[in-house]
Amino acid sequence: MTLPSWNDTQTKQTILDFVAAACDENSPDYVPLAERIAAFDNDGTLWVEQPAPAQTGLLLGKLVEQVKANPSLAAEEPYKAIVNKDPAYMQALAQQVPEAVIAFLKGVGQAWEGTTPDTYEAEVQAFLASAEHPRFNRPWTDLVYQPMLELFDLLRVNDWRIFVCSGGGRDFMRVFSEKTWGIYRENVIGSAPEFAYEDGQLVRRNKLHGNIALGPGKPEHIYARTGRTALFASGNGDVDLEMLQEARFRLVIVHDDEEREYATTAAAERLLAAGREGGWTMVSMKEDWKTIFKN
Amino acid sequence: MTLPSWNDTQTKQTILDFVAAACDENSPDYVPLAERIAAFDNDGTLWVEQPAPAQTGLLLGKLVEQVKANPSLAAEEPYKAIVNKDPAYMQALAQQVPEAVIAFLKGVGQAWEGTTPDTYEAEVQAFLASAEHPRFNRPWTDLVYQPMLELFDLLRVNDWRIFVCSGGGRDFMRVFSEKTWGIYRENVIGSAPEFAYEDGQLVRRNKLHGNIALGPGKPEHIYARTGRTALFASGNGDVDLEMLQEARFRLVIVHDDEEREYATTAAAERLLAAGREGGWTMVSMKEDWKTIFKN
Repeated sequence: MTLPSWNDTQTKQTILDFVAAACDENSPDYVPLAERIAAFDNDGTLWVEQPAPAQTGLLLGKLVEQVKANPSLAAEEPYKAIVNKDPAYMQALAQQVPEAVIAFLKGVGQAWEGTTPDTYEAEVQAFLASAEHPRFNRPWTDLVYQPMLELFDLLRVNDWRIFVCSGGGRDFMRVFSEKTWGIYRENVIGSAPEFAYEDGQLVRRNKLHGNIALGPGKPEHIYARTGRTALFASGNGDVDLEMLQEARFRLVIVHDDEEREYATTAAAERLLAAGREGGWTMVSMKEDWKTIFKN
Repeated sequence: MTLPSWNDTQTKQTILDFVAAACDENSPDYVPLAERIAAFDNDGTLWVEQPAPAQTGLLLGKLVEQVKANPSLAAEEPYKAIVNKDPAYMQALAQQVPEAVIAFLKGVGQAWEGTTPDTYEAEVQAFLASAEHPRFNRPWTDLVYQPMLELFDLLRVNDWRIFVCSGGGRDFMRVFSEKTWGIYRENVIGSAPEFAYEDGQLVRRNKLHGNIALGPGKPEHIYARTGRTALFASGNGDVDLEMLQEARFRLVIVHDDEEREYATTAAAERLLAAGREGGWTMVSMKEDWKTIFKN
């Protein structure tokens, strides 16, 4: 059965129709195999984003550790705002306001500079094994949306290549992408540092590899990775707008289910307006999804 | 028939044995599916590299055009060396000496700054359609090695994901990768500029995206793209050394066939020494290959 966790609404039918037409050589919406690239945002599109993206916990914890080891850092941003739990800064960070993210990444870049991939991966594994969502009291990787995993299945059997393109950390997501999403690491796109290969070892540099993958950074990263823009794109926030504008099929995840997840339009106002105006496919989590989380 | 253009030598057997063991869960050389990543250099590994890589013709032509349009450039490097056809500089460029390549890329970066992907692709298509190899008098894409295409087939049916990782231009190779190699654009890794997404359009920036993909830049780019190093790697020059050192199976293409292709060890001395010392798999084009070029 196709998309079993989706209710039989117009939304589901629109998805099925697009995917079927893309495979039909006689359809005006036929998509040649090489061009069947789908890109999905992560936070709020594939798993819970509220009250703040999962990775924020790892990063805040790391920066607090840095300050403990070197107390003079507490006088500098972003450490100062973090140590003082500045509410305006924390909200801007949770909503992925680019300026706040960039300031934050300065600290992140310093914290992991010189780290090997194995060391970083072990830290992420330890975080994922211990962190729980504050409301659902479950590990973050349990809070992946079951309907989206089923959409991955549908696209895969129709020969689409699935990429995740998140403003969050590429290397953070790669730690769980294969087990949680069934997506090889190489199909995970996100903000990332450069690496240097020195003395037979890869180490992180304190330098971003291109821009952060937010807003215009999403088509930039997707093009760098794939040589194309994504024909099928899905997101839930304003930082996904450019990625969706470049796509032919746009799927917007609308967080309108306060009971089972969250109801919020924060940092999604422009995307929701563009989607409604443009007739994009709007997923109501409340109306379109039978279940929210994977079993 | 597997590898039909390979002679029945030890080299062929070593490849077949490795690929078979990688699929055998009871073998100590078993490779889990997720880790089956193979990376191939392009120039001299997948097609003719002598007397200079194909792309050099496109780039030199572009820089000469730039000087024609703006004669004052002729006083600056790399334009000066190019206009004067400085033999030492041309040789360093042909052998991908990093310093020469970096100087060259400065001019290349200026030449295509602000160009859209479509415009660049049209220029590459026009070049590939008109350029001929000076000795073989055939288009460069006819000079792909048939035995390597068969090796791609063998790896594909055994669930390896094949990447090309060249010091040459990522976006240059992507123009022909699907038709010539049967490899999707997203599996092509190479030196590349950053792109900016501005006013709904991607444009090239005059800035490298990370390092050039030569020497240590190869494992850097492969890790950035895949989250791993390549377990199977193949190259023919010193600039491939680090990529092969990181691999478990190393395939070195030895250019020893003056009659059908070229016999040269230039810019491959360190790789050949490392391969012989380390017992890597050395492909003699003369002894191991029945045919050189694809039909």
